[in-house]
Amino acid sequence: MHVNAYAASSATSPLEPTTIERRDVGPKDVLIDIAYAGICHSDIHTIRGEWGDVPYPLTVGHEIVGTVAEVGADVTSHKVGDRVGVGCMVNSCRECENCLAGEEQYCEKGNIGTYGAKDVDGTITQGGYSEKIVVDEHFVLRVPESIPYEKAAPLLCAGITTYSPLNHWNAGPGKKVAVVGLGGLGHMAVKIAHAMGAEVTVLSQTLSKKDDGLKMGADHYYATKDEETFETLKKSFDLIINTVSAPLDLKQYLGLLALNGTMVNVGAPPEPLPIQVFTLFTNRRSFAGSSIGGIRETQEMLDFCAENGIAPETELISADQINEAYERVLKSDVRYRFVIDAKTFAPA
Amino acid sequence: MHVNAYAASSATSPLEPTTIERRDVGPKDVLIDIAYAGICHSDIHTIRGEWGDVPYPLTVGHEIVGTVAEVGADVTSHKVGDRVGVGCMVNSCRECENCLAGEEQYCEKGNIGTYGAKDVDGTITQGGYSEKIVVDEHFVLRVPESIPYEKAAPLLCAGITTYSPLNHWNAGPGKKVAVVGLGGLGHMAVKIAHAMGAEVTVLSQTLSKKDDGLKMGADHYYATKDEETFETLKKSFDLIINTVSAPLDLKQYLGLLALNGTMVNVGAPPEPLPIQVFTLFTNRRSFAGSSIGGIRETQEMLDFCAENGIAPETELISADQINEAYERVLKSDVRYRFVIDAKTFAPA
Repeated sequence: MHVNAYAASSATSPLEPTTIERRDVGPKDVLIDIAYAGICHSDIHTIRGEWGDVPYPLTVGHEIVGTVAEVGADVTSHKVGDRVGVGCMVNSCRECENCLAGEEQYCEKGNIGTYGAKDVDGTITQGGYSEKIVVDEHFVLRVPESIPYEKAAPLLCAGITTYSPLNHWNAGPGKKVAVVGLGGLGHMAVKIAHAMGAEVTVLSQTLSKKDDGLKMGADHYYATKDEETFETLKKSFDLIINTVSAPLDLKQYLGLLALNGTMVNVGAPPEPLPIQVFTLFTNRRSFAGSSIGGIRETQEMLDFCAENGIAPETELISADQINEAYERVLKSDVRYRFVIDAKTFAPA
Repeated sequence: MHVNAYAASSATSPLEPTTIERRDVGPKDVLIDIAYAGICHSDIHTIRGEWGDVPYPLTVGHEIVGTVAEVGADVTSHKVGDRVGVGCMVNSCRECENCLAGEEQYCEKGNIGTYGAKDVDGTITQGGYSEKIVVDEHFVLRVPESIPYEKAAPLLCAGITTYSPLNHWNAGPGKKVAVVGLGGLGHMAVKIAHAMGAEVTVLSQTLSKKDDGLKMGADHYYATKDEETFETLKKSFDLIINTVSAPLDLKQYLGLLALNGTMVNVGAPPEPLPIQVFTLFTNRRSFAGSSIGGIRETQEMLDFCAENGIAPETELISADQINEAYERVLKSDVRYRFVIDAKTFAPA
């Protein structure tokens, strides 16, 4: 099956309309008519070759929502007409200890990413900037009707990437949580941590988005360009969720952690950061990483967002605006996530 | 009160016999006739000025056991004749959140170290390489009679420094624990982790101490000079206790952690280490630090060691052998901790 999509043919090419192939619907597969696809910063890093070799031409996009158009004979979890989502992975070995524990993102053989990965049939996976996608039912999520359709897509990456560490490190009543960076991931972290009952502080370069942050549920908002911030907030957080990919001065940020505090990175620079182990001795601090979330936890996150009326702040664009949107993402000029209307992937 | 002791007068001087002053016994104080004092690598780093400015002349030593000789009027926890111990700290603010939580080592104002620190009365604390010491009863531990007297001292630093992270990160049945380095700290980590029920692996530069390690309770023993070790043990540990102060290749060691695994440092090089955040994304890994333990936990550790028949491997020396012992510690030529017989602090 050939479907309309947008793809880039090299690290320096813009994304352009094309057609890509989708496999036939197998017995456990779900065919999804994509309705909306979010633009994640990872899409840009990947397509521009910043994270390693890319099998061009490639269609990116791993924040996908749509409607089930067809299901294979053995599919039991989804039916035609259901509103569903697909996130950052479309398969994993399903046999290793981590997969069996429902943590497919940490599959010991490596999960199969939604784009640019070698699938079990040897083909290269193609992402969500397209009209349709075929995915094994295990990796298809139910998107509750109460989440606005055109806002749901970013939950599949930005939502789960922040929900998972907040959940794992027990953000909740009595916990002080800082969120570094108020972008696509950061704004979801604020909303989710607030809904979990934590006291939430945003640490952003400037105060330019302060009003937005407070509206999203932040209790406090500080500018990291102001050196005094690091003195004022010293030893105060139980958990810091760092959504920023640029290198940070770890000594400053780790110094903000209270007893048993953890700084969790969900964004990361490709180059190594210098870490002073003595800084970790104080308050028994931890420096950790977290990668998206498992399928069970992603469903839990979607249900949590539905129950708590949480949705991303989005700006809807058409496919021909993708390249311009990329430039705006790189300038942090998006409040707070671009979502592509998938109807516009079809040639005009 | 003047007591015999050993002190160094500069970063480059050997330790020599001297006398130091001990304060009068206050209402909450305990006067201890020191019986044995352990030699910790920290003593050497400190006295040689490698960890910052030192108020010379200084007497070091923070692994102290002895017998109560006198108690102040308000002392309730100890009585004359009791076998007691003193570790790395002799006071803290006793008011901050961490002190009130029994984690005095993480006192927000900084705990008062057993040597080289400014005490509440403005004097500089002097350590355990001496005949007697006066300490507030809260910082004096009960040493169970079943722990051999001449072996108990190292528990006060090497014991608690390894017990605390093993306890905090839940070493126990079903957990795979690696201990990096089989020195003073490492050999205690092996014994304690084994007694807690964990499956213990030693990661040492060579296999030269393998027989010792297995006798102490290690289930497995690998040489880190053998590159294959890092391939064989990839993604296998829940907890790594790193007792080595020399800089390690973190990517190699973090790569050994299984899902939700933590590498805890109890030793550390003064210079920052490069850390690749992407390595932490895999398996949701953490890189952490831990500093000794609180007073309540130190007592718990002593009782645990007594119940489980755990004691350090020690080599008893006299005071005039301290300088030579330092050189042997630096060459890792000690199996596994030097203990000074405090009777020998008196001039011959």
